[in-house]
Amino acid sequence: MNIRPPVSVAEAIRTRRSARRFRPDPLPDGLLTELLALTVEAPSSWNFQSRSVVAVTAPEDREALARAANDQDQPRLAPVTLVFLAECDAWRGDLSDVLTTARASGAWSEEFARSVATHGVDFQRDLAERGLLREYAVKDAMIAAGFAMLAATGAGLASSPMNGWDEAEVKKVVGVDDRDDLAVALLLSIGLPVEERRHPGRRPRDRHVFHGRYGRPWSMGLPTAGGPSGDLHDAGAPR
Amino acid sequence: MNIRPPVSVAEAIRTRRSARRFRPDPLPDGLLTELLALTVEAPSSWNFQSRSVVAVTAPEDREALARAANDQDQPRLAPVTLVFLAECDAWRGDLSDVLTTARASGAWSEEFARSVATHGVDFQRDLAERGLLREYAVKDAMIAAGFAMLAATGAGLASSPMNGWDEAEVKKVVGVDDRDDLAVALLLSIGLPVEERRHPGRRPRDRHVFHGRYGRPWSMGLPTAGGPSGDLHDAGAPR
Repeated sequence: MNIRPPVSVAEAIRTRRSARRFRPDPLPDGLLTELLALTVEAPSSWNFQSRSVVAVTAPEDREALARAANDQDQPRLAPVTLVFLAECDAWRGDLSDVLTTARASGAWSEEFARSVATHGVDFQRDLAERGLLREYAVKDAMIAAGFAMLAATGAGLASSPMNGWDEAEVKKVVGVDDRDDLAVALLLSIGLPVEERRHPGRRPRDRHVFHGRYGRPWSMGLPTAGGPSGDLHDAGAPR
Repeated sequence: MNIRPPVSVAEAIRTRRSARRFRPDPLPDGLLTELLALTVEAPSSWNFQSRSVVAVTAPEDREALARAANDQDQPRLAPVTLVFLAECDAWRGDLSDVLTTARASGAWSEEFARSVATHGVDFQRDLAERGLLREYAVKDAMIAAGFAMLAATGAGLASSPMNGWDEAEVKKVVGVDDRDDLAVALLLSIGLPVEERRHPGRRPRDRHVFHGRYGRPWSMGLPTAGGPSGDLHDAGAPR
């Protein structure tokens, strides 16, 4: 199904770039379905799966997304844009299917399933009281979006994660303008690559990677000769 | 550096499970460094990199994390727990290194770099006015956390993403209890696997994967025979 030989996770992470342009061709049959299947394999808090994804492929809807996204071109150019939605109230519904499936597979003991049914829902209720439901559902959505980015790279596709949209307008495009329980987390345009993009680089590793305490560089905890990946600064060079 | 032959992204996504137990052994030399390097390769909004990661390895700190996490055992059992922090104010600092690096690599044109310097900062200021800085920094942190989960699986390691902690207590452990600009996004314990875990399953695909409009199942837009991955319900079965 891939359009190139599969690559390792490490290679996918190192070679993924954010695309700005795409070939206009649709994705090969079945590939988008596989991407979507991989996307919802992502873990979620309590396995409550407080996220959904809408694959937008119709030209008029892609145009509407581009306009909703401050006229960013990617939804226009890519054959599909995934809209990641945070489902803030997923936990309020009937969760018995989640519990039954996990028990049937042997993944959860009866005791653990009971604990999820009580403590999981209590946890969500506490989030609601503290105004954190949206943040936690967005977290579920973002893990799925990250998985989708790497699944796309792994399949040889280009992708472009996007912020910078008007949330109400995006919700209109996917038909949920009346749903206060749904929040837009991210847009991700996906298509066949048309360009090689260079790495914009990352800040020096000791600015964002720490050991034990924030501000204590990770390298301090390492032997000075750590092999090919032991040099923190080299491995992060733009590529 | 991997402890098993590298796997494709798709295989990593399909085989990743959330671990509860770990071998007590430390990770092989250099492997954690490589994981951290891959983690901060994750993309971020405007490439402002509004996230940091603290690798907690000292037994007393891991014990403190376990207590902060409602006594979840994973930080105690795993040799390392990554604390993902959202950096809500990263954009307020000097961003010239971000712009210079991206221009030097040829990834950004001078015009684009100028646009990031102005529109990117305006965008963040608007988020600040709308009370969304934390949410957007958490989004950057969660993409990085998702990449770290898959990088760990790709390297043959077990991992356990965790919510359910007291944010103030976690911040104390990593020394940022005085930093209102930093938020805890996720804990991720990582170690050598000690058990095979079963797949708890996912809700039926048509509950969370849509085509064009929320509520319109993706399968409606597909040819009925989509090849091995064309069957939406089969591909998501517990494994």
